Amino acid sequence: MYRSHTCGELTASHINTEVTLAGWVQKTRDKGFMIWVDVRDRYGITQLIFDEKRTDTSVFEKAKTLGREFVIQVKGTVIERESKNPNMPTGEIEILVSELNILNEAMLPPFTIEDETDGGEDIRMKYRYLDIRRNPVKNNLLFRHKVSMEVRKYLSDKGFCDIETPYLIKSTPEGARDFVVPSRMNEGQFYALPQSPQTFKQLLMVGGMDKYFQIVKCFRDEDLRADRQPEFTQIDCEMAFVEQEDILDMFEGLTRHLLKEIKGIEVDKFPRITYDYAMKTYGNDKPDIRFEMKFGELNAVAQHKDFGVFNSAELVVGIAAPGCASYTRKEIDALIEWVKRPQIGASGMVYVKCEEDGSFKSSVDKFYDQEDLKKWAEATQAKAGDLILVLSGNADKTRTQLSALRMEVATRLGLRKSDEFAPLWVVDFPLLEWDEESGRYHAMHHPFTSPKPEDIELIETHPGKVRANAYDMVLNGNEIGGGSIRIHDRALQSRMFDLLGFSKEEAQAQFGFLMNAFEFGAPPHGGLAFGLDRLVSILGGQETIRDFIAFPKNNSGRDVMIDAPSKIDTKQLEELHIKLK
Amino acid sequence: MYRSHTCGELTASHINTEVTLAGWVQKTRDKGFMIWVDVRDRYGITQLIFDEKRTDTSVFEKAKTLGREFVIQVKGTVIERESKNPNMPTGEIEILVSELNILNEAMLPPFTIEDETDGGEDIRMKYRYLDIRRNPVKNNLLFRHKVSMEVRKYLSDKGFCDIETPYLIKSTPEGARDFVVPSRMNEGQFYALPQSPQTFKQLLMVGGMDKYFQIVKCFRDEDLRADRQPEFTQIDCEMAFVEQEDILDMFEGLTRHLLKEIKGIEVDKFPRITYDYAMKTYGNDKPDIRFEMKFGELNAVAQHKDFGVFNSAELVVGIAAPGCASYTRKEIDALIEWVKRPQIGASGMVYVKCEEDGSFKSSVDKFYDQEDLKKWAEATQAKAGDLILVLSGNADKTRTQLSALRMEVATRLGLRKSDEFAPLWVVDFPLLEWDEESGRYHAMHHPFTSPKPEDIELIETHPGKVRANAYDMVLNGNEIGGGSIRIHDRALQSRMFDLLGFSKEEAQAQFGFLMNAFEFGAPPHGGLAFGLDRLVSILGGQETIRDFIAFPKNNSGRDVMIDAPSKIDTKQLEELHIKLK
Repeated sequence: MYRSHTCGELTASHINTEVTLAGWVQKTRDKGFMIWVDVRDRYGITQLIFDEKRTDTSVFEKAKTLGREFVIQVKGTVIERESKNPNMPTGEIEILVSELNILNEAMLPPFTIEDETDGGEDIRMKYRYLDIRRNPVKNNLLFRHKVSMEVRKYLSDKGFCDIETPYLIKSTPEGARDFVVPSRMNEGQFYALPQSPQTFKQLLMVGGMDKYFQIVKCFRDEDLRADRQPEFTQIDCEMAFVEQEDILDMFEGLTRHLLKEIKGIEVDKFPRITYDYAMKTYGNDKPDIRFEMKFGELNAVAQHKDFGVFNSAELVVGIAAPGCASYTRKEIDALIEWVKRPQIGASGMVYVKCEEDGSFKSSVDKFYDQEDLKKWAEATQAKAGDLILVLSGNADKTRTQLSALRMEVATRLGLRKSDEFAPLWVVDFPLLEWDEESGRYHAMHHPFTSPKPEDIELIETHPGKVRANAYDMVLNGNEIGGGSIRIHDRALQSRMFDLLGFSKEEAQAQFGFLMNAFEFGAPPHGGLAFGLDRLVSILGGQETIRDFIAFPKNNSGRDVMIDAPSKIDTKQLEELHIKLK
Repeated sequence: MYRSHTCGELTASHINTEVTLAGWVQKTRDKGFMIWVDVRDRYGITQLIFDEKRTDTSVFEKAKTLGREFVIQVKGTVIERESKNPNMPTGEIEILVSELNILNEAMLPPFTIEDETDGGEDIRMKYRYLDIRRNPVKNNLLFRHKVSMEVRKYLSDKGFCDIETPYLIKSTPEGARDFVVPSRMNEGQFYALPQSPQTFKQLLMVGGMDKYFQIVKCFRDEDLRADRQPEFTQIDCEMAFVEQEDILDMFEGLTRHLLKEIKGIEVDKFPRITYDYAMKTYGNDKPDIRFEMKFGELNAVAQHKDFGVFNSAELVVGIAAPGCASYTRKEIDALIEWVKRPQIGASGMVYVKCEEDGSFKSSVDKFYDQEDLKKWAEATQAKAGDLILVLSGNADKTRTQLSALRMEVATRLGLRKSDEFAPLWVVDFPLLEWDEESGRYHAMHHPFTSPKPEDIELIETHPGKVRANAYDMVLNGNEIGGGSIRIHDRALQSRMFDLLGFSKEEAQAQFGFLMNAFEFGAPPHGGLAFGLDRLVSILGGQETIRDFIAFPKNNSGRDVMIDAPSKIDTKQLEELHIKLK
């Protein structure tokens, strides 16, 4: 046994106990006649003391050689500390060391192993194993473990069966780009890594396993934006003999369970809003509802006056920034500059201060009187003390701009609190979205999503108006999960593939196995997948998923620690029947 | 809600309840005026009754159209059955149906969806989703889920942290062949899929996460033998600040927990035998100890007589087949034929019947007297009534042959009972094994395995004699888990790579990240990985792992259901900077 206790558990109740500890040297303080060493492991830090008078000379001398991050094992007696530290669990005691073994020496680490480190992102990625020693990263990994365990427990208790689906599957042209794997045994052929186990979970439903889940890695070979990883983890779920309502209930239950068990927070029944409402009210389909600032459309009250900018706009729309009527000219100018940045792209911004005395002061006072502005305040639900911010222009673009401004203002006001959780469902997504580039409709969710029965008649005539039985769970401005009721009828699935521009042959070649399966008694079914990386980071109150992944890749898809990807042997290429271009 | 109850839960206590059920038509019996339909879901089968007198005509007519595997939803009243079936949980009741919805029709399935099916292996693989509807396959998947959950629960309760390691890693020439993934963003470079998360779990130990586990897919691009899959699942574990003893204790505890929770079986402390003992006593390193038949070496008592075959043999070795002295000449000849088959390759077999009266009757009576044979009986621990079977020749080959014979005899005697579990540890494996083909030593476990400290001095002089701190857990003749204490010292790791024929440059290029990590304070550590597919199949009392995998591949590595691997677009190849040869 290398240790009798961990470095996080000894307290005053252990005084006079003989103990053995092992861990890393966090720091040493050498006073000449007395040496203190903090030894650290996963569980905490314990102070060791080497005393010239009480410690064997050879042990004392050895203690002098200890450097940061040396791995040591010590035996000694728990004694009461002279100067206690009430801020740490082991702060009442220290170990008077009688035996010291250096288990491994350590070079000076390239950054400090402290909660606040001096290491930049790149160096910490390269030495990720050292970064994991730091509390912030270590605690994130432990937190992720806890979330995963709770998810599994909840779903298993509800009768879900964890079923592993294959990783070496078939490449499909639909959706994002696949990672592929050349087959040695099947010359000229390739496996693909799954973007999700979508078709397999549907086949499990056809197979009668009516409640399935899996925490599973998925892969997308897309150009990496900040905080996107080529491999990511899904909590993948599917149920048979259910309607949308059953699924929303089940997974709302799961999320409520997590918030309660992990964060100790009870939340009310999740609000449900339609996609159309979300777009009109928040300008996007994953609204952050920790705060209000709902959009107020102003066309009716702001147009047909003398202000040409608004008159020529497709949409005039505003939000009421709470308590911001007191903003200085400088603060307002900063917001105007912000919306005019190329990333946002607004041409300007109109504002109205709702003064405490009930009067209004705006940047367009020469076009609008107090009565006009009062109507604006009503439309944006502005109260005395609020600042109304108004954008105008093309409807879609303006909503997107105002949505960004809404988030920015909320951030500046400190309304995006990481310890506050406001989940909701967004439902009734469109089935299809028009893709300008390819000049055809794409599935908004995926080609297996069921249209709403009452909209099926619009499929050929007004495809863009067909709503889907599709839903997203949104938490604090992030889509954390999404899913749909699936098509379980071969004819309808076939019609969908037609609509998406597949020829009969392509559809059969790519998804024939699924459509065939539908002919052998497919039950009604649907499901949902959560993005675990994102879910964990939001629950953990942080922004970047990378901090919750043990070994993440950088924005070029590289693992800089192990230096992958890398070149492979010519022999390997030959065996795989491929060559480099 | 599609159903108020499942098809497995209604009993006499529900009589007169109005229920809604959904499921698949298992079978129909149409008596003209009365139609019985068995409806099946994951949970069981419930009998429906349509009665010309009591059922609405339109419903009755619809019931006539039902075919096997149609998906239906019914509403009706639970009534007492006239002819009860005590063999099924729902056998006391039936449902008098008032409403019938056909949710989906079904073509006639290509094989019967019954516990005993008429479908061959190939057709069942192709329509795996139909095979999963059958109880034997469905129950295996539910069983696997239960085992996985128990494993996670046990390890989590013991403080292990489930940490996901990456799937897109770096190819290494050591060990089995990698599956590789061409990188689009890094031209000419490839990721590899992990054969195991070995180096990552070691880096987690360097990172201070002293107890790690993960249930994780691993990949090996090897020619497939029966019952080997290109992707397989490991329960992967690692601990820091431990010695071999700590690891054996921990995972013996896990296995004991599984046997108790899953099978209701309490097992004693696992026997521990050395690799050398296993080879000498059972002729292989994964002995089935559900039965005895230990090897008895007979050189001392069988050589230097007049029997030339034995005199010229390197090894003469026998086993005592219990109670087989009564075997007829024909039965013994069958065994002799069996060992002479090319797969076994023995040139012959000598036998000795240990008669009930204490006398011996052998096939070599003209060379050996009763006193000689008594010594054979002592060496093989044969009792009256046993049949001693003796092989001879080259030591290694003969042991392998006798090991196969031992298993064959045990099978014939019914000693390999699937509901009996005899786990053990095999320890002290050799560090290295000589590879004739490459003319060099290979790591028997892997290059990170620690030699026993007392054997380190033999590394350069007698590499073949160095024992490793490596261990296998064996259950019923199968290696279900294996692991080792790892090297945590850069210099020793470097020496190992030398020994394995790596140049300094190769070692640095392939494993530099790990050796570098060892310089920053690596703790002593070690671990173990279980093969989950195998573990589950043995606990399930079955032979083939394929029956415990939802979507297995065939012996050519193909998924015949989805038809993968397959060709991919030229455009995809171009983006990946590769072309076909």
